[in-house]
Amino acid sequence: MTQLQLLLVAGTHGNEINGIWLFEAWEKSLSLINNHGIKICKVIGNPEAKKAGKRYIHNDLNRSFLEESFTSINSPDFERIRANELIKLYGKEGENPCQIALDFHTTTASMGSCLVVYGRRYADLALASLIQYKLGLPIYLHESDKDQTGFLVESWPCGLVIEIGPVGQGLLNAKIISQTKLIVENLLDQIQQVKKLNLFFPEKLIIHRHIKSIDFPRDDEGNINALVHPLRQSKDWQLLKKDDELFYQLNGEIIKFEENEPFIPVFINEAAYMEKNIAMSFTKRELWIVKNEWKKSLIDLINQE
Amino acid sequence: MTQLQLLLVAGTHGNEINGIWLFEAWEKSLSLINNHGIKICKVIGNPEAKKAGKRYIHNDLNRSFLEESFTSINSPDFERIRANELIKLYGKEGENPCQIALDFHTTTASMGSCLVVYGRRYADLALASLIQYKLGLPIYLHESDKDQTGFLVESWPCGLVIEIGPVGQGLLNAKIISQTKLIVENLLDQIQQVKKLNLFFPEKLIIHRHIKSIDFPRDDEGNINALVHPLRQSKDWQLLKKDDELFYQLNGEIIKFEENEPFIPVFINEAAYMEKNIAMSFTKRELWIVKNEWKKSLIDLINQE
Repeated sequence: MTQLQLLLVAGTHGNEINGIWLFEAWEKSLSLINNHGIKICKVIGNPEAKKAGKRYIHNDLNRSFLEESFTSINSPDFERIRANELIKLYGKEGENPCQIALDFHTTTASMGSCLVVYGRRYADLALASLIQYKLGLPIYLHESDKDQTGFLVESWPCGLVIEIGPVGQGLLNAKIISQTKLIVENLLDQIQQVKKLNLFFPEKLIIHRHIKSIDFPRDDEGNINALVHPLRQSKDWQLLKKDDELFYQLNGEIIKFEENEPFIPVFINEAAYMEKNIAMSFTKRELWIVKNEWKKSLIDLINQE
Repeated sequence: MTQLQLLLVAGTHGNEINGIWLFEAWEKSLSLINNHGIKICKVIGNPEAKKAGKRYIHNDLNRSFLEESFTSINSPDFERIRANELIKLYGKEGENPCQIALDFHTTTASMGSCLVVYGRRYADLALASLIQYKLGLPIYLHESDKDQTGFLVESWPCGLVIEIGPVGQGLLNAKIISQTKLIVENLLDQIQQVKKLNLFFPEKLIIHRHIKSIDFPRDDEGNINALVHPLRQSKDWQLLKKDDELFYQLNGEIIKFEENEPFIPVFINEAAYMEKNIAMSFTKRELWIVKNEWKKSLIDLINQE
């Protein structure tokens, strides 16, 4: 078996630059973050998009890790080619194999620091539980959304997205970078503890399970004709109940939330999701028991050598 | 003489989209804003950049209104061509002549709502004084900066920039749009009052006069190696004194403001100014007497017919 190696990816979206800045600072000053002797590959996900100051060149790289793309290397789509390349370089069977991937993102939504988990892979849930136990971060479980697939971390045996906001696209912010650094430090520390079999798993995990996304109200021509209501803006993770203000039209008309069942919205008014027809996503908060098979999966992955 | 006509420009920077959205909403519902019978041309400054989701295609349009560009129409620079085109269409000698230009911008800095005036043209100062008197907005007087020239409004006999933030690039925000709308309404109201010679000029004008801009600290290779300090972030318009925290390095080192003379910083950490090597600009607050010749200049311009 190969030795444990982590893949840290920043700039998967070229205009989310705070993680890239952290990597560069860390590269210049290796003692900035204690790696606990763990082997790490740091990579900029989409350097071309970074150079262009854009989220992506042809398509969202973080939706480009699709099964079919790995068979059609001659795709003219820049990001599909890059996805293939990253797998070839750092995938679990790659030239420089990594078993765990951490993908650093920022958002214009007021999400604070949080983790995103895709689906219910045991090792992901176990690792997320350790970080939540230590830092108290909320976890957004993204699943059952056929319109949103092909996420980077899904191509590694274990992988989490770190999502921090609010920060504008293309904007460096000291607080966002410090928050990113804190999570990296904690992750490395937790992985080190599992490697040493010092196991302090919590009994329970709080997750915010994805239910659905909603679009902005649109006119007959498909143009957005109402905005996120000021009372809803920046209220990520806060309960949305029937008759709460949801959208706002400039003529003063308010569009209220009319469903009977309350939800917890996340990614409220994320700039990059406008093109995906997502004004916000709705979640349910759930308390899950941390299962032994989750722990076992993570322990096996980290201690496979 | 031709009849008074206002030029309203949104999206001079293609990723500042809130003004564009306001224009579209206003176009669909003409009663949204009372134009007081004043003739108005609404135009998107840089529609190509808007389409591309970028600030500009080749160069900043709001630095492209340069004397030399008007003689070299065959320039390969998209924005210089567009600057020429706007002058040709809406300049004071243009096909559809406008005398006053208002250019709508947003910033990632926490500037609130403010006006930017370029140089000390009498009509600009008079119009700014009316809006400040009514809404209390701060005014940033930009002058004596040879590195920053070619602003759009300078090509019209009278012109102001409306600058509102914080809002991320490419992000619609109901509050920012409402703030923009309030200023448009007030501007039209004030111009209407001057047209009717109902003159309520204030005695004094508070201006924040541009002194200089400062860059981020950089390493030997020219890379930014310190960020705006969290205590300075979002503190636009607030006095910066000797020994106040200015920049912050990830290793915890703090770079303090070391000049003896205090300044009032503006445009702190505006995302688009990183490429212009501007971390923030320093101003001095001054109280100016509103002079009769300023008033006369605006009255003559508005009542020239």
